[in-house]
Amino acid sequence: MVSPKLMLGIGLMSGTSGDGVDVAIVRFDGGKIALLATGFLPYPAILRKEIMQASQPDGEAQLICRLNVELGKVFAAAAMLTAKKAGISMDEIRFIGSHGQTIRHQPVSGKGKISSTLQIGEAAEIAHMCGCLVVSDFRPADIAAGGCGAPLAPLAHHAMFADEKQDRIVHNLGGISNITWLPAGCGQEKVAGFDTGPANMLIDLAVSHFSKGKAAFDKGGKTAMEGKVDKRMFGYCMAHPYYSEKPPKSTGRETFGADYFGEILKRHKKVGKEDFLRTLCAVTAGSAVSQAVRFLKPQKKFRWVLCGGGAYNNAIVAEIGARLEGRGAVSLSGELGFGEKSVEPVLMAVLAHRTLHGLPGNLPQVTGAKMPMILGKISLP
Amino acid sequence: MVSPKLMLGIGLMSGTSGDGVDVAIVRFDGGKIALLATGFLPYPAILRKEIMQASQPDGEAQLICRLNVELGKVFAAAAMLTAKKAGISMDEIRFIGSHGQTIRHQPVSGKGKISSTLQIGEAAEIAHMCGCLVVSDFRPADIAAGGCGAPLAPLAHHAMFADEKQDRIVHNLGGISNITWLPAGCGQEKVAGFDTGPANMLIDLAVSHFSKGKAAFDKGGKTAMEGKVDKRMFGYCMAHPYYSEKPPKSTGRETFGADYFGEILKRHKKVGKEDFLRTLCAVTAGSAVSQAVRFLKPQKKFRWVLCGGGAYNNAIVAEIGARLEGRGAVSLSGELGFGEKSVEPVLMAVLAHRTLHGLPGNLPQVTGAKMPMILGKISLP
Repeated sequence: MVSPKLMLGIGLMSGTSGDGVDVAIVRFDGGKIALLATGFLPYPAILRKEIMQASQPDGEAQLICRLNVELGKVFAAAAMLTAKKAGISMDEIRFIGSHGQTIRHQPVSGKGKISSTLQIGEAAEIAHMCGCLVVSDFRPADIAAGGCGAPLAPLAHHAMFADEKQDRIVHNLGGISNITWLPAGCGQEKVAGFDTGPANMLIDLAVSHFSKGKAAFDKGGKTAMEGKVDKRMFGYCMAHPYYSEKPPKSTGRETFGADYFGEILKRHKKVGKEDFLRTLCAVTAGSAVSQAVRFLKPQKKFRWVLCGGGAYNNAIVAEIGARLEGRGAVSLSGELGFGEKSVEPVLMAVLAHRTLHGLPGNLPQVTGAKMPMILGKISLP
Repeated sequence: MVSPKLMLGIGLMSGTSGDGVDVAIVRFDGGKIALLATGFLPYPAILRKEIMQASQPDGEAQLICRLNVELGKVFAAAAMLTAKKAGISMDEIRFIGSHGQTIRHQPVSGKGKISSTLQIGEAAEIAHMCGCLVVSDFRPADIAAGGCGAPLAPLAHHAMFADEKQDRIVHNLGGISNITWLPAGCGQEKVAGFDTGPANMLIDLAVSHFSKGKAAFDKGGKTAMEGKVDKRMFGYCMAHPYYSEKPPKSTGRETFGADYFGEILKRHKKVGKEDFLRTLCAVTAGSAVSQAVRFLKPQKKFRWVLCGGGAYNNAIVAEIGARLEGRGAVSLSGELGFGEKSVEPVLMAVLAHRTLHGLPGNLPQVTGAKMPMILGKISLP
């Protein structure tokens, strides 16, 4: 539908940690992509709180309805602010790809059961305010084809990070953690990936708990770096059945949210703040590394590429390094051309670009879908 | 985007009464439309109940998330069943326009206030199951441009019912009632219209109350026909402030739903079932006619065209006839080529067809939007 080979698109990612919206302005030149600018618009505290309320199992319809529109306006503002800062006119932007804020993600398996997912952030608001075409809501088409609707990152990780000679594992640390397996020189069909479990979601809940709501996250992993791993708590957390499930699989706040956090807390009341946070970092790292080894079976030394907000948490990075035990070397994604916070929004631009060219955006071997699907819904300005 | 002049489309309408989905298969030949087939798939009782739960202010996120996918599957089934019955292959269908089930409709006015609306029934499910392009979610673009997101019917009413010589008022009796003003020979810019208030929504609540949940609606208005108008209750209901608000305006279950019904009931405990239903029919009729006279100011004799499920309620029809006091003659829409239950689903096909041709679907003078907007989101199969 969009014809010129060279075009600019914007990707918007609002992750499960619910802290704000990441923006990437991307140049597409045929199959090649280049990152032109990035931005981040944090949510005001009240909005963050309302998102958390709406994301509960009993999040209320009237709140969801209103937040859908409010978030659409915030997403549009984030796109426009980033373009303005970068000196790029919105007239040059051909399209926006928007993930939306996940309110629920309920993949289930079993006969007669219905998988579902719900992202909000009204695309019509973005299209109207920004004056350009928007592709949004990428996950439901994968679910319609029998997939989990997640993870969607692997295809874009392949475009950004695949290497001819080196096996790579891309590890995205958002609210949820997911990894992508990119064996050297592989085509899309050899890409593997899955959600490995919680990352910032649990850590942020812990920070909020220990600070009585005053702090939202552990910047740089500073507090966790002062603690050490509590072995009992680590053992309890690592025994979560999700880590043993075979991929394809995906997860979310429904499994690793406030209820689960409350359970951990109840059972480990004596663990102090620093050790508690350090242990959650170790669980994030340990569950990702152990599942990578178990399910991806790397045969030679690989590069472990970190992206997402959690890549700035030094305790997580340290725990990953230790647990790799020399099997792989850790890099930040920025060393490979895409800053840690840009990978997810770039993904959204890549998915939108594919949809507008009639190309599928899911990888069936990753999501479990029966077939490749053109993802998303197109809103005209 | 869709080029051939002649094409078939399907429209799907699931109204605020929440009883099922109406289907229309429509042939488009340039600007001309012809109705080829209609169908109706009633919701199973459990689904209807869940929709009502989800539509409450505190309708739960996890239910909304699941229902979105379930309803998408039901909509797809309704489209396919209707095509099959009509002997039309789905391969011939170029597109589907789907309204979705309204969960919330919250138009508000005032500085800093945010209007919003939420329809569910996953378009990706419809597109995948039916194997064709789907346009869905028509209201948010109008809201993004400052409109109420409703009513959207007037533009299609114009295409279906406008007459060169006769002034016409089209009255759609769904869960909510809306009227469209089509002065003789008028272009789109002279069309007026607004939601007039409740229709089947209150009546169905009353039927459910008096039958202790055993009946869902008063078929043919049979029970209401046995009653007479209770003057006190009629006066109380007609004093609702919505009826005095100047158009553009729209309303929904938030204003005329269970809470309001409970209020009427509490104040009129002594009114028996038959009289209660008859009075609600009189309120539906009386509020529509009085607002038509007050806001549309018809100067000569006009035709009052009834459509929607409520057109089969003889008590409503009788009350309208009486209250018109000779100012207009009542017809059913079927007499003018579009069966009473087909008008709303035809509208959805018309809106989808316009979107795919890059044409706006709202009328700013009707919805209050600042400009004409291309409505809806496009999902590819």
